[in-house]
Amino acid sequence: MERRRHEHDFEEEWREAGISRGYSYTDYNVNGRNIERIVEPETVEQVFKNLEVPSWRKQITIRAMVTSIVLSFVFNFVICKLSLTTGIIPSFNVAAGLLGFAFVKAWVSLIEKFGLLKQPFTRQENTVIQTCVVAASGIAFNNGTSSYLLAMSSIVADQADRDIPTNVKSLSLGWIIGFLLTVSFVGLFLMVPLTEMMIIKYKLTYPTGTATAYLINSFHTPRGAKLAGQQVSALFKSFCFSFAFAFFQWFFRSGSDCGFSSFPTFGLQAYSHRFYFDFSSTYVGVGMICPYMVNVSLLLGSILSWGIMWPLIEKKAGIWYSADLPANSLHGIQGYRVFLAIAMMLGDGLYHVAYIMVKTMVNIIQQHSMKRKEATVINTHFSNQTLESMLENFDERRRKEFFLKDQIPSWVAIPGYICLAGLSIGVIPVIFPQLKPYHVLVAYLMAPILAFCNAYGCGLTDWSLASNYGKMAIMVFSSWVGLENGGVLAGLASCGVIMSIVSTASDLMQDFKTGYLTLASPRSMFFSQVFGTAIGCLFSPLIFWFFYKAYSVGDPTGSYPAPYGPMYRGMALLGVEGVASLPKNCLEFAIWFFVAALLINLITHLFQRYETRYRIYRFIPSPMCIAIPFYLGGYFSIDMCIGSLILLFWGMKNKQMANDFGPAVASGLICGESLWGVPAAMLSLAGLNAPICMKFLSASTNNKIDAILSGL
Amino acid sequence: MERRRHEHDFEEEWREAGISRGYSYTDYNVNGRNIERIVEPETVEQVFKNLEVPSWRKQITIRAMVTSIVLSFVFNFVICKLSLTTGIIPSFNVAAGLLGFAFVKAWVSLIEKFGLLKQPFTRQENTVIQTCVVAASGIAFNNGTSSYLLAMSSIVADQADRDIPTNVKSLSLGWIIGFLLTVSFVGLFLMVPLTEMMIIKYKLTYPTGTATAYLINSFHTPRGAKLAGQQVSALFKSFCFSFAFAFFQWFFRSGSDCGFSSFPTFGLQAYSHRFYFDFSSTYVGVGMICPYMVNVSLLLGSILSWGIMWPLIEKKAGIWYSADLPANSLHGIQGYRVFLAIAMMLGDGLYHVAYIMVKTMVNIIQQHSMKRKEATVINTHFSNQTLESMLENFDERRRKEFFLKDQIPSWVAIPGYICLAGLSIGVIPVIFPQLKPYHVLVAYLMAPILAFCNAYGCGLTDWSLASNYGKMAIMVFSSWVGLENGGVLAGLASCGVIMSIVSTASDLMQDFKTGYLTLASPRSMFFSQVFGTAIGCLFSPLIFWFFYKAYSVGDPTGSYPAPYGPMYRGMALLGVEGVASLPKNCLEFAIWFFVAALLINLITHLFQRYETRYRIYRFIPSPMCIAIPFYLGGYFSIDMCIGSLILLFWGMKNKQMANDFGPAVASGLICGESLWGVPAAMLSLAGLNAPICMKFLSASTNNKIDAILSGL
Repeated sequence: MERRRHEHDFEEEWREAGISRGYSYTDYNVNGRNIERIVEPETVEQVFKNLEVPSWRKQITIRAMVTSIVLSFVFNFVICKLSLTTGIIPSFNVAAGLLGFAFVKAWVSLIEKFGLLKQPFTRQENTVIQTCVVAASGIAFNNGTSSYLLAMSSIVADQADRDIPTNVKSLSLGWIIGFLLTVSFVGLFLMVPLTEMMIIKYKLTYPTGTATAYLINSFHTPRGAKLAGQQVSALFKSFCFSFAFAFFQWFFRSGSDCGFSSFPTFGLQAYSHRFYFDFSSTYVGVGMICPYMVNVSLLLGSILSWGIMWPLIEKKAGIWYSADLPANSLHGIQGYRVFLAIAMMLGDGLYHVAYIMVKTMVNIIQQHSMKRKEATVINTHFSNQTLESMLENFDERRRKEFFLKDQIPSWVAIPGYICLAGLSIGVIPVIFPQLKPYHVLVAYLMAPILAFCNAYGCGLTDWSLASNYGKMAIMVFSSWVGLENGGVLAGLASCGVIMSIVSTASDLMQDFKTGYLTLASPRSMFFSQVFGTAIGCLFSPLIFWFFYKAYSVGDPTGSYPAPYGPMYRGMALLGVEGVASLPKNCLEFAIWFFVAALLINLITHLFQRYETRYRIYRFIPSPMCIAIPFYLGGYFSIDMCIGSLILLFWGMKNKQMANDFGPAVASGLICGESLWGVPAAMLSLAGLNAPICMKFLSASTNNKIDAILSGL
Repeated sequence: MERRRHEHDFEEEWREAGISRGYSYTDYNVNGRNIERIVEPETVEQVFKNLEVPSWRKQITIRAMVTSIVLSFVFNFVICKLSLTTGIIPSFNVAAGLLGFAFVKAWVSLIEKFGLLKQPFTRQENTVIQTCVVAASGIAFNNGTSSYLLAMSSIVADQADRDIPTNVKSLSLGWIIGFLLTVSFVGLFLMVPLTEMMIIKYKLTYPTGTATAYLINSFHTPRGAKLAGQQVSALFKSFCFSFAFAFFQWFFRSGSDCGFSSFPTFGLQAYSHRFYFDFSSTYVGVGMICPYMVNVSLLLGSILSWGIMWPLIEKKAGIWYSADLPANSLHGIQGYRVFLAIAMMLGDGLYHVAYIMVKTMVNIIQQHSMKRKEATVINTHFSNQTLESMLENFDERRRKEFFLKDQIPSWVAIPGYICLAGLSIGVIPVIFPQLKPYHVLVAYLMAPILAFCNAYGCGLTDWSLASNYGKMAIMVFSSWVGLENGGVLAGLASCGVIMSIVSTASDLMQDFKTGYLTLASPRSMFFSQVFGTAIGCLFSPLIFWFFYKAYSVGDPTGSYPAPYGPMYRGMALLGVEGVASLPKNCLEFAIWFFVAALLINLITHLFQRYETRYRIYRFIPSPMCIAIPFYLGGYFSIDMCIGSLILLFWGMKNKQMANDFGPAVASGLICGESLWGVPAAMLSLAGLNAPICMKFLSASTNNKIDAILSGL
């Protein structure tokens, strides 16, 4: 859920430290500040200038759609699995780019051999695929099946043990798809009129979009295509390894406490505090993609919470809270876990919202004053001719030309938004009777402002704050509606409305930036977005449903704890009930952590600004990352740190290899184990259990068991 | 036990196939047939001619002795552990050479920095170390603590369940050391008078000795020293990995059926037939050193026996043999396992003894007739001058000169042999009253002939047949003495007498060949042999005792089954009782396997001789290797095949790297896990058990256990 934000929080820092990690950054040295400086001298478009750019209709081919559907399914599956396990989802841009290119390229090469090729594979077509896959994955990120929708279900509500029927809605595939279809398209129409301003006028960076564009551009040069081929082969190998290893692991997990995922690597004592390496190649891969400091922060958070705080609080059982509560009750130790994590996340979110808003304001004001200054300066010193060539070189002229040619007219976009918003206002209160039409109307009036902020902020910093806006929506709407009227459900549903619009807005702009830099037509991009969103709205609930039926999703001790479910419900409860329901001292702790999150962020920014010698800010952990293990425990932090270590050693042995192939190998690791989830879930649905249990017993228990077994 | 034989059985074939595996072979292209051709054009001695060769006393330094003691201890430990687990022991020549060089080189470099170096490190000194370590390891190979001595103990006797007190001797450290000291030095004195004939006159190859010499020579060139440094570093890394992994594994093995060594990798069904990967880095390393065909043969033997034959025979329980015998009774299924393995080993041994004898005869006859022919030819065509230069180039002249200078006079050697043999005849009947002095006398009269055959055969083929001669001695002496008079014990003891002499003879000649090729003095070599034998006689029983006290050595289902113990006792029983005691149909099967072993060897040799196009003989498995898993099961074959696969893939990626570093990495893997045995055995002796049991249960058992555990 917090993907982009974190990734770039640190990626920016690492990039500035010269230790770039992402594929695209190292290869093309694209970074937030000096992107124009780098792009212009290279004149990418001069390389491509002899290639015809197909019309927008021709950019959308059947092969591109088929590839998009396949990849959308794969990434929806992977993202769904990740968000149900820990909620930490790395960026799949590199994997999607590589695979999209490899699929179509392979198909085109095959067809070409038979002399049947009608249309060559262009980078515009590639961008269309990428856009579609990103849009479909975006739905998986924000569809709420692992957060706000799951939070409505009784399985999560039972943990919070305040069962008021109006605050529980049992999940069903029908209304989830209906809800997603209603809310997901609104954002698309909202942002279209603003594209020209964001991309051409303000020249916002959109680092992810830019990086993706450079990746795609590179694929279509001979050297890039060769490297891509090798990377795809590396990805495939690590995919196979990861899939086979997950398959192997399956055999040893006949019960819930069996198998590699319960391996007490550091002893049984550490295991009981959720410190162990669980042999998950997925999270080793995730650790390889995430910046070092994210992994270190996660580990730090694990040690702080499960290593120090929870054992201390558990000693107070019976004093601070009733000792005979069920283990997952929010009134007991679980309450501290959930609410301290929420406090830290809210503090971090609030700081960033404020920061981005201020930055957006300052930037817009500067833009205006600069324009005026520039105009003055130019009029004084340069002729118009010089200015023209200075401001618009070959690449930029060409990009602008293609971008403006096919623009989507405002008379399509604005009525589109109004119609869809109207539809939502009608449909959502039917799905959630707790939410009245005027609540939805208010949401759709707030949304454009938040969406603009998010799209602009994302263009500057690459951080999408959609989930933060969503959390605030929960608080606002749940307290407005109130507990008795189903405020919990109302808050969660409104979160969905706001998150969809806000996240779509930033995703769309990232894609348009990619399209701008690859000369893809805004119309084909828009079509691709709509198509991707539609398949996302279908795939992602279906995949979620598959997991939901096969496993006990939401069980905090199971394989699919879906940590954001209880988090989001906890926030809604805070909204309706206030702080009165928290266990003893929990509020005090929560306030400390909230303040700590604000302070850590502030200190980081102050150091970033004023301490440029040692750049200590690089070593300050992220509060958001510290908070995630509060609920889950340390096991995935250990996986991810192992991923970091692998990358570190690889880089020490061969920096170039590690940079070129690290992200591909990591993507293979992530996808391999995740896709083993398909057959695993089918086996589970078919009632086929693994044949062996690899059990870990203390020596004394083992002796007892052996005595019993010999009697069996 | 069967080390050299197997290794070179296939190594020769692989070498001929151009797929050389050993370090020394690839780097120096030393191979059985064209060694002189290769050596002469390179004139190794011209490279070294400006270096002074120290006097024989100066070749024996304190640093060399200290290094020898340390390495002897390490290799004694490793070999003891290996012979108690499976009895398959790879060659440690490369590891001993590398480590000996690295130790002294590091020491010399350190001393040189402080300006205290009095004597540079020469290759002669290096050879002295190598010789000493090989001599000490030789004792570990042949000391019988895992074969004939263990076979005397009640733990093995109980399995054969024919408890006649005169046929059991409880092991004790005192008499084992006494026995070894008595028998181990005799061979040294026996062969000394023959060295000149074997090495200079017959110019026998001694492939292992030659390879070692080239390794040592190479270390003392700058390029060789650098490569050796890198190899030592690779060895050290894999050592650390292997040690750490064994340490990690220890924690999960609180009971005998717990931990990685009971991992049912291929399912519980396969596990019950002893097919599983037991995560032993030792045997993965052994597999990397052994030729591919050895590993394939082992796997084939495992599948044939544990996969097909034993399950079929077990269906006849109650018909062919009583169904309620204890699991390890030789009258039950265990009898088939032991006696079929013995039959195959005896068949293989007999074939090779015959083959080597014939080859030795033919060669000696050819030598004589050639000498005569040559003389004729020379007289006719060449002047004496040309002949001289043709027959003796620079290298050979120089080597001969140094070799003959310090020869050990026969008036030391022959009386030495007679004195030591006399001592043995007096002492051995005291230790084993079952063996009368005239039995020992007969053994010492037979020994010189067998020793000559073995030393000569080994010079030609690199196969030491010591254990085969030992097995024959068991049959001869046990039937001579008879069951009632303690024939089992007498046979086993005489096996020790014969094996010591015969194996020492071939080892000594290998060492003299090494010394000849490195200009080391025969006297320093002899001294080093004596010293090595002495420390071997002390270390190896002590180390065995350490294992014997810490673990249940000889338990067929434990970690230290010591397979050769029951094998050797089985042979002695065959000798005293004949075939009457075997379970039903066992004799028929045994005869088939005996004949099969003869036939397979015969076919291999026929193919080798007459089918030179596809060289099919390379793909014929070795009967000896097929027989080893009969008793033990398939787990170590799987480890070893994984070692082969690793080497295969490594070779496919980078042939040169795999050739240069494969043996070093493998040695590290072997030594690391083996040396973890030191702290592990100490923990076990101290009564400290591992804290966790990693248990593997079937799903149904697990459900029962879970039900019980929830009630505990």
